[in-house]
Amino acid sequence: MYKIAVVPGDGIGQEVIAEGVKVLNALEETADVSFSLDYLDIGSERYLRTGELLTENDIDDLRKHDAIYFGAIGDPRVAPGILEKGILISMRTTFDQYVNTRPSKAWHPYTPLKEEKDFDIIFLRENTEDFYMGAGSRFSNGKGVSLDLKRKLYDAKITVSMEANTDDEFAFEIGMMSRKGIERFADYCFKTAKDLGKDKVTAVDKANVCTSLYGMWREIFKQKSQEYGIALEHMYVDAMAMALVRAPERFGVVACPNMFGDILTDIGAEIMGGLGVAASGNISPSGVSMFEPVHGSAPDIAGQGKANPIAAILAAKLMIDNLGRRDLGILIEKAVRKAMDNKDLTADMGGHLSTKQTGDAIAKYISIV
Amino acid sequence: MYKIAVVPGDGIGQEVIAEGVKVLNALEETADVSFSLDYLDIGSERYLRTGELLTENDIDDLRKHDAIYFGAIGDPRVAPGILEKGILISMRTTFDQYVNTRPSKAWHPYTPLKEEKDFDIIFLRENTEDFYMGAGSRFSNGKGVSLDLKRKLYDAKITVSMEANTDDEFAFEIGMMSRKGIERFADYCFKTAKDLGKDKVTAVDKANVCTSLYGMWREIFKQKSQEYGIALEHMYVDAMAMALVRAPERFGVVACPNMFGDILTDIGAEIMGGLGVAASGNISPSGVSMFEPVHGSAPDIAGQGKANPIAAILAAKLMIDNLGRRDLGILIEKAVRKAMDNKDLTADMGGHLSTKQTGDAIAKYISIV
Ligand SMILES: CC(C)[C@H](C(=O)O)[C@@H](O)C(=O)O
Ligand SMILES: CC(C)[C@H](C(=O)O)[C@@H](O)C(=O)O
Repeated sequence: MYKIAVVPGDGIGQEVIAEGVKVLNALEETADVSFSLDYLDIGSERYLRTGELLTENDIDDLRKHDAIYFGAIGDPRVAPGILEKGILISMRTTFDQYVNTRPSKAWHPYTPLKEEKDFDIIFLRENTEDFYMGAGSRFSNGKGVSLDLKRKLYDAKITVSMEANTDDEFAFEIGMMSRKGIERFADYCFKTAKDLGKDKVTAVDKANVCTSLYGMWREIFKQKSQEYGIALEHMYVDAMAMALVRAPERFGVVACPNMFGDILTDIGAEIMGGLGVAASGNISPSGVSMFEPVHGSAPDIAGQGKANPIAAILAAKLMIDNLGRRDLGILIEKAVRKAMDNKDLTADMGGHLSTKQTGDAIAKYISIV
Repeated sequence: MYKIAVVPGDGIGQEVIAEGVKVLNALEETADVSFSLDYLDIGSERYLRTGELLTENDIDDLRKHDAIYFGAIGDPRVAPGILEKGILISMRTTFDQYVNTRPSKAWHPYTPLKEEKDFDIIFLRENTEDFYMGAGSRFSNGKGVSLDLKRKLYDAKITVSMEANTDDEFAFEIGMMSRKGIERFADYCFKTAKDLGKDKVTAVDKANVCTSLYGMWREIFKQKSQEYGIALEHMYVDAMAMALVRAPERFGVVACPNMFGDILTDIGAEIMGGLGVAASGNISPSGVSMFEPVHGSAPDIAGQGKANPIAAILAAKLMIDNLGRRDLGILIEKAVRKAMDNKDLTADMGGHLSTKQTGDAIAKYISIV
């Protein structure tokens, strides 16, 4: 019995998570597994009502579960950054979900690439450091600025101050990584490569420009590559973005710093078939992990039964894999493939079904694949 | 008569620039234009011999020209960052080439996208600020660090200091933008949109995470959009990376901060047909601009006559457009199209010609298109 915290969130998050839950129920009927689901009300509605983002109470609740199954957050009435930082990024750091895993495998014929190659990439994105630390500010009138960074991981207090002898206005953002943070992430990457029988890890950076930040990243990846006896390939982020479109079949495990991972995994999503099929796991190797579709709350189509539930259903697959039941994960993936083959799909993938009908079809296939 | 400083640089830079020069010569024979070319020896060979990157002498020389025609730099014997920062980025800042322009138009059938749509995007990338200021460092043993940033544009001296109460090691990089820097860049973007008759500017950022840095960016773009009476669309960089693969036809003028521009313009290069056809202009609106193919020095194929000269030839086109002779730029583009239609191409584009033969063909077409 797995205890799952369900956070449908905003907009189409509600609709697609309902279909993911349908598939979990179908698994309970077919296999020796059971889930107990607790629904939590976290998202923009509550924020607009009460001003609360991720509260201490939420955190205590979430901590009691084996995993978090998350829909989406986002609302046009809320300024950019508030929900993202206050809920999503806050969850990643609070639970120390320091690896973001996003598989990208070709779902033919839905890939937009001319040559329908087979590829199967596991993107691993460092999920707590780099440019996601919220270490930015603005200053003007020759005043300068000072800010404190406190980060759980290394229990360090870092104070930054800037002095400027000018009246001009400046804005800045600091990207920072710790040796410990990169080491534990690199360990996870090489272990994953070993587990999956991949013969190399591709590590992405921009060490020719951000020489300090990504110089340390390179150093540590080199050390770990030797330790694990697994080959290492360095790629600059710009070249990697191209290569993913040109020759995705060249890659297996791809390790990315946080910001570049954000961008590259969206390319990974696109080349496999788009946001409709892209799922994400925020992994805390020794704590509570969170699983979500990559797409957002899509307020423009919310409530219309148009949303594609496959990404949320594949997020449930990632969750079950991660809970140790890869056998059941395979079932879900097969059921999704069958829905594609039978065109039991929403309009964005060329089908004629509603969100619910698509979920019904996939849930039904669980027992027959 | 235009005075051009030619810097072939390293590896295939030498080979492809020779073909670009061939095309310039062909233009002189066909049209009322003439070029005087001065060759400068800047690049890894000189660096390895003398330790010199971009010297005061080079700068004085370059400044006497109407434009710089640049090949590529890069050599496996030199550590990442040294040539890039010491030559390329140094040239951008020294000559205040604060706009990088990279057109991306579909060259059918060379685009890797399944649907052969027509698109015609002008990427404009801020080329001197953001994460390209070299403002990074590492610290450990509770020692902290202090660094000085000096930037020509705003004549400001900014001092950053960090204190840390921990023995762990950290590396960081600061991305910074000035109000003046964004304003002049946004002006260029909206003016370009007006000139080209485009009805909107798409401005890329990650304002939901780097709220300070890209919050200012958004503010200024909004003001300028109102000033110019041209619509503005904000896109997050991750969504933009996807959209370029899914629906490039949606975009016209795309304005990017430096680092995101680096990544997105490489996607732009790929979707139009790859590095073989991607050209870049580093524009100093009131100074000396520099034009180059986007590809690097490609040491693995250097000296074999395999390099595709089209990107360098299209860089010459950008240069001529920028010198005010769009009529001649059109000639070059037509000659390139004719080479494609006749399959007068190198192997990377499915042809059988050498670098020189491809250049010969395009130079010949200049007089007949
Ligand atoms: C919503 C946003 C903060 C988030 C990110 O940048 O990490 C999203 O793009 C993602 O990739 O999960
Ligand atoms: C070589 C490198 C420093 C450069 C950059 O990052 O700007 C290159 O990628 C480019 O886009 O011109």
